[in-house]
Amino acid sequence: MTDFDHGGSTQTSTGWLSPEDLELVRAHVPIVYVDAVPVRVDALGNVTAVGMLLRVASDGSISRMVVSGRVLFGEKVREALMRHCEKDLGPMALPRVPAEPTPFTVVEYFPNPDRSGFHDPRHHAVSLAYVVPVDGDCEPTQEALDLSWFSPQEAVSPELISQMTGGHDRLIRLALAHVGKLP
Amino acid sequence: MTDFDHGGSTQTSTGWLSPEDLELVRAHVPIVYVDAVPVRVDALGNVTAVGMLLRVASDGSISRMVVSGRVLFGEKVREALMRHCEKDLGPMALPRVPAEPTPFTVVEYFPNPDRSGFHDPRHHAVSLAYVVPVDGDCEPTQEALDLSWFSPQEAVSPELISQMTGGHDRLIRLALAHVGKLP
Amino acid sequence: MTDFDHGGSTQTSTGWLSPEDLELVRAHVPIVYVDAVPVRVDALGNVTAVGMLLRVASDGSISRMVVSGRVLFGEKVREALMRHCEKDLGPMALPRVPAEPTPFTVVEYFPNPDRSGFHDPRHHAVSLAYVVPVDGDCEPTQEALDLSWFSPQEAVSPELISQMTGGHDRLIRLALAHVGKLP
Amino acid sequence: MTDFDHGGSTQTSTGWLSPEDLELVRAHVPIVYVDAVPVRVDALGNVTAVGMLLRVASDGSISRMVVSGRVLFGEKVREALMRHCEKDLGPMALPRVPAEPTPFTVVEYFPNPDRSGFHDPRHHAVSLAYVVPVDGDCEPTQEALDLSWFSPQEAVSPELISQMTGGHDRLIRLALAHVGKLP
Repeated sequence: MTDFDHGGSTQTSTGWLSPEDLELVRAHVPIVYVDAVPVRVDALGNVTAVGMLLRVASDGSISRMVVSGRVLFGEKVREALMRHCEKDLGPMALPRVPAEPTPFTVVEYFPNPDRSGFHDPRHHAVSLAYVVPVDGDCEPTQEALDLSWFSPQEAVSPELISQMTGGHDRLIRLALAHVGKLP
Repeated sequence: MTDFDHGGSTQTSTGWLSPEDLELVRAHVPIVYVDAVPVRVDALGNVTAVGMLLRVASDGSISRMVVSGRVLFGEKVREALMRHCEKDLGPMALPRVPAEPTPFTVVEYFPNPDRSGFHDPRHHAVSLAYVVPVDGDCEPTQEALDLSWFSPQEAVSPELISQMTGGHDRLIRLALAHVGKLP
Repeated sequence: MTDFDHGGSTQTSTGWLSPEDLELVRAHVPIVYVDAVPVRVDALGNVTAVGMLLRVASDGSISRMVVSGRVLFGEKVREALMRHCEKDLGPMALPRVPAEPTPFTVVEYFPNPDRSGFHDPRHHAVSLAYVVPVDGDCEPTQEALDLSWFSPQEAVSPELISQMTGGHDRLIRLALAHVGKLP
Repeated sequence: MTDFDHGGSTQTSTGWLSPEDLELVRAHVPIVYVDAVPVRVDALGNVTAVGMLLRVASDGSISRMVVSGRVLFGEKVREALMRHCEKDLGPMALPRVPAEPTPFTVVEYFPNPDRSGFHDPRHHAVSLAYVVPVDGDCEPTQEALDLSWFSPQEAVSPELISQMTGGHDRLIRLALAHVGKLP
């Protein structure tokens, strides 16, 4: 069962959105999204590693990605954040959704790749991006092929950047800057 | 000409959303909104006054409100912020949209008034809220009956709180706290 | 063994500051402080309670207070934050120092109570204030007489406000606003 | 007339700190600083350029730097920010100190260059860093040899990074990330 983050039909609290209705929505309004950058932190709260999924991105390529998905009708942002983290990182990940509702940045994904540098061919999405410390054991679930952890230095390396698409490499840099760990 | 913030039909970059389609969208996905709290600042950046509109709120009451409206398909958040400020405060207001994309809080308006304390009977909206310093002359436009400025102390007084609805009184307190001026 | 947060002599990484030297420092430069507002959060990150110490405040009164203390020479802000949390909340508190270095507000304590609304008769302190989720068991240590937890509603009640001094009641309101839980 | 940011003696609200007393302070407590990254913004608030001074840095080299200096005894953070901006950018710069007291990051300068990546051989400083939009005409004043504006792309180029010291290149990247303009 999938929602329209990665599939063809969409669950809402009031039922399903047909493919036709989904297309109508996507063509007329921006979609509310959340992006979660999973991190490992040490005892003092320093970010020591960034987690990235390997999976089929919105443009069809197999890419390194952060946790990402939409907010459903009637769902709170932090509920969506927890749901997507559990869905992508597995039930034992123990994600710690931040106490403050403020995202570290707002990412605007446009169908036009030149509009903002963040790109999603499917729709215009306004995404609230959070850094989410993860304490437990993560295992890729659903469509993800792999979940790997990278040091801040590795996470901004040309090699890793070349494996990301849609602006997710830049999102990682913004997240590392926010926690003061951008190399 | 109105969009669905305050009217029956909706302009998008690709045309109009019919009332039927609008209902479909509103019933199935959260809508992306921006809220702007207009403020006067002194030479050192201290907030000295908060601006509030008097107009018909989403629940039909005549209320004190901040600038509020949705983000259109294809529109950037800061473009929407500027558009709504100009629409509600007039063309000479000279609003200063912040350099950072991060809102000071995220307000979640639900049709159910008990869900979050922020309420909009028409839909579920996820609103990015910004404090916007305004340097120029403001005059209420369109549906607004009045625009008045209040000191931080007045803005959180029982009298003014009683004139607000949908949680806008709380939004004002969150904004004043963010700028360190909550009494 | 105490530092000059609550005692007469001061430990630094390079040794002790004599009472005379301490007075000289306090009379000439602002002191770097950290304030930590301990909170309980639920599984989704919602703040459910605020912790407050009962102890002798800087003005000599017995007051409700947040965790507060200075940053030592050579010490990182997050090390100071952890040290003061452990000192005041006990070794089993498991405080979670935030991943980001940005405080939710900056509190400026002046010897003159009218300067900013935040007051410390001993010195001018610039304090970085953080919300610190605490998972473990807390027990008041050292000079603290008690540590109690209050709901957001209780934490801003007139009764509790009357038990705070130096502006700590306002600091609590700013913290609750930051996490979206100001009533 | 200089304070100890760039000179040998220090003005405070209560008079001067002798070189001996200054050394004592610097050896025993962290110093409160502010860093201001001057920027040009367009009508929508987008950062289009970053301003950098060319002057003698704390390590003696001639370097590109942001506006930086300490907070005096009795002085508010935003007063210090305004004072240093006016001192370094000239009286016609019209800096816009942010309404919120929260810095975009906290920079910890240590005498030991390996401690945090931010380095000041003279002392341990805890600096509150702000992005400050500047509308007016800037002219380098006092010790500064030059003031130049660079696009975000130029500001993070290897050429410019090689002209910065003490971690100011990294501070620029953190500032650009905060405003969503890190390339």
